[in-house]
Amino acid sequence: MSEESLDAPAHKATLPQQAFAEFIGTAALLCAVIGSGIMAERLSGGNTGVALLANTLATVFALYVLIETLGPISGAHFNPLVTIWALFLDRKVPKTQEKIARAAPGLIAFVFIVAQLAGAASGAWLANAMFDMSIFQASAKLRGGLGQWMAEAVATGGLLFVIIRSGAAGVNAKASALVACYIGAAYWFTASTSFANPAAVFGRMMSDSFAGIAPGSALGFVAAQCVGAALGGVAAKLLSFKS
Amino acid sequence: MSEESLDAPAHKATLPQQAFAEFIGTAALLCAVIGSGIMAERLSGGNTGVALLANTLATVFALYVLIETLGPISGAHFNPLVTIWALFLDRKVPKTQEKIARAAPGLIAFVFIVAQLAGAASGAWLANAMFDMSIFQASAKLRGGLGQWMAEAVATGGLLFVIIRSGAAGVNAKASALVACYIGAAYWFTASTSFANPAAVFGRMMSDSFAGIAPGSALGFVAAQCVGAALGGVAAKLLSFKS
Amino acid sequence: MSEESLDAPAHKATLPQQAFAEFIGTAALLCAVIGSGIMAERLSGGNTGVALLANTLATVFALYVLIETLGPISGAHFNPLVTIWALFLDRKVPKTQEKIARAAPGLIAFVFIVAQLAGAASGAWLANAMFDMSIFQASAKLRGGLGQWMAEAVATGGLLFVIIRSGAAGVNAKASALVACYIGAAYWFTASTSFANPAAVFGRMMSDSFAGIAPGSALGFVAAQCVGAALGGVAAKLLSFKS
Amino acid sequence: MSEESLDAPAHKATLPQQAFAEFIGTAALLCAVIGSGIMAERLSGGNTGVALLANTLATVFALYVLIETLGPISGAHFNPLVTIWALFLDRKVPKTQEKIARAAPGLIAFVFIVAQLAGAASGAWLANAMFDMSIFQASAKLRGGLGQWMAEAVATGGLLFVIIRSGAAGVNAKASALVACYIGAAYWFTASTSFANPAAVFGRMMSDSFAGIAPGSALGFVAAQCVGAALGGVAAKLLSFKS
Repeated sequence: MSEESLDAPAHKATLPQQAFAEFIGTAALLCAVIGSGIMAERLSGGNTGVALLANTLATVFALYVLIETLGPISGAHFNPLVTIWALFLDRKVPKTQEKIARAAPGLIAFVFIVAQLAGAASGAWLANAMFDMSIFQASAKLRGGLGQWMAEAVATGGLLFVIIRSGAAGVNAKASALVACYIGAAYWFTASTSFANPAAVFGRMMSDSFAGIAPGSALGFVAAQCVGAALGGVAAKLLSFKS
Repeated sequence: MSEESLDAPAHKATLPQQAFAEFIGTAALLCAVIGSGIMAERLSGGNTGVALLANTLATVFALYVLIETLGPISGAHFNPLVTIWALFLDRKVPKTQEKIARAAPGLIAFVFIVAQLAGAASGAWLANAMFDMSIFQASAKLRGGLGQWMAEAVATGGLLFVIIRSGAAGVNAKASALVACYIGAAYWFTASTSFANPAAVFGRMMSDSFAGIAPGSALGFVAAQCVGAALGGVAAKLLSFKS
Repeated sequence: MSEESLDAPAHKATLPQQAFAEFIGTAALLCAVIGSGIMAERLSGGNTGVALLANTLATVFALYVLIETLGPISGAHFNPLVTIWALFLDRKVPKTQEKIARAAPGLIAFVFIVAQLAGAASGAWLANAMFDMSIFQASAKLRGGLGQWMAEAVATGGLLFVIIRSGAAGVNAKASALVACYIGAAYWFTASTSFANPAAVFGRMMSDSFAGIAPGSALGFVAAQCVGAALGGVAAKLLSFKS
Repeated sequence: MSEESLDAPAHKATLPQQAFAEFIGTAALLCAVIGSGIMAERLSGGNTGVALLANTLATVFALYVLIETLGPISGAHFNPLVTIWALFLDRKVPKTQEKIARAAPGLIAFVFIVAQLAGAASGAWLANAMFDMSIFQASAKLRGGLGQWMAEAVATGGLLFVIIRSGAAGVNAKASALVACYIGAAYWFTASTSFANPAAVFGRMMSDSFAGIAPGSALGFVAAQCVGAALGGVAAKLLSFKS
């Protein structure tokens, strides 16, 4: 029965297993986002609408699968802002076997975020390698301006709102579908195509392709994401009630 | 367990929380519809079929997420016709903590519809702002004629039919998927691309873009929607039986 | 709880309600298939691939919604071959309040099939009307040849196979998604775009548009569907075992 | 109730029924992949992005339906690497009525793999026939190189990872959706469009069309798949814990 593995807290996983889950999940997510972007741009004959449709479908499918398969291990954060919200604001610490980690949420947060960033870079490198591009490179695609920053705030606020409302990151039976569908919509309704994740910004800097972002544009995106995450968290809390 | 939060009536939410849910949900819906329309039109190189495909996917994903996350608060109406049907015809009043509201369905209806219209306008303005368009504007896209009005009646009748048959607005475990999929189909099989919602007409008047409608065309659409809603409600009631 | 209404046999519905459900469901299905075909062809600028993608999505969404909302009434057949299989071969007679109908499956079959054909024609006429085409017309699109007939046999055999394997028409919690997804795949992998339904052939004869079929091509399609349905039924029965 | 048939081990099916399920499932899968590829290429007017989008949707829908409808019989492997993993490494032998098969996993593996290869070829021939191409032919499409081989390893490793994490092949309620969505993503994020299955390579050799692969390119793909499957299995096992 699948619900068992989904609803059960990952209390028997070790911290290294959780770090590995965050690493491999973020790597797979970035590989899916960047790889499908490269494939889509190559095949769509200049019709960027077709390319973003393919990029959207691949991202939605990948997110759903990754949250389902890795959620029971680590909560399937794949995103530093989700980790910070879960550990420090929601106090929903992923349960581990390590006493030291249970006593220090900050340690878990540090380990998770390092794993996410390492995973994001690895996913970008893997996509570059598979598509016969040089493995180590930087994107030249400038992204920014008031509209794009507002869009990143909206995208990240919406993401946190959806995660909080759907229960808790990775342990609600519908959270996987909700987060995946949310990002699928946000790719289109936000002017920035919804990065919504500092780890995604980090990984996308490392591929000069459809989904890339120039390193110089990264700080603006991440700052906007932090503002949006805070607003989304506040909006979700305004709606909380005892059921 | 997600079913708990979905099936439970929102009896502990306050009326202001419900109004906020209707406001933010309708805003997000209109922002998704209009924003994805702008993005889709910009990217699809003149192939309107590709643009409407993207617009459809974004709307379907957004509706599913919004009904799931806000249904337990307010019923996730986002539509004055759904509110009127629920409160006056189906007598399924969203339960609130406020005694005065429980005693006066008309008060709830008034608050919900004001929140929906304010949300629809705000969503349009947000989409305009994110895409670097002037925030306050009016659509110049004329829509009307016998075929389009018939289409709006069909679209709205079908929507009410689906909502009534799937149990009750926002409290049935599959209602979110059914409403989202219905609108996804209706975007294509109705000649008007299925507005099916007076609040959607109101918001779409405020963006001169892919999903817009000229203010002068609004009355015809809303009138057709009212006729269709009545027909859809009658059809659903003809099929009701004690199970 | 949605499962209740889905799993419960429709034993309290009257035969006229069941006939109305078959009528309105088949009308909506044909309206969705034909209407989305017209819209898709008009918008896709000559790219038939884009048009069939849109036609596919609209059909999949519509089928899912119609089977979910009408299955508890009549079993959501919408297809004479499904009705014949259910009533005479599987002996899964939709339960009605009418004694005379319970005693005579042939009467139910006759009523259902008349309702399906009337619904199919009405759906085509509604689509024609919404898109400002003359209501009564005939398709001029010739379809046939060995490959197309083989494709219709494959499509219909697969449909019966999926329906039988997924439990019983309309009363299995996943049957709606399985049938909808099956048709979505079959639109593309069969050379005929998978009519798989004599009532669909009947309705599509009445619109000279993307999804149409010339009346002279109808007999070959229906004959192939009958052969395929028999083969699909046999294949499904070869796999049956007591669980 | 659908869960019953899904969760129940197929302990009453006979080995010939299981072989027939693997045969017909692999045939249908390859017919869907190859047939939709032919249709997509013919309709998409040279836009390969549109063609792969259609090919992706048809494959995802078909996989979901086939795993749901055939999983309770044989486990719905359709893939020699999944069979080998299930029988020899995971020791999850599909239960049969035949004593001799229960005593000899090697016999089951042999029967399953023969059925899969025969099914793959039959599916390709059926697609060729439906689309009025000569039934027996070989693909001339060369595929290979370091990037493509790496992609096949990634694709197959991911597939095994998803299957192992989602419980057991074919008996987990969400496995069907997870495998289908995974392949849908991998069609786009791997440079090889994710064959991920030696039986799929075998069948695709036999159609000189969109989804084909030249026989001379087959060995490299299959070798890469074996390496990837091993890596995916190891990664999944690193995350296992007692829940």
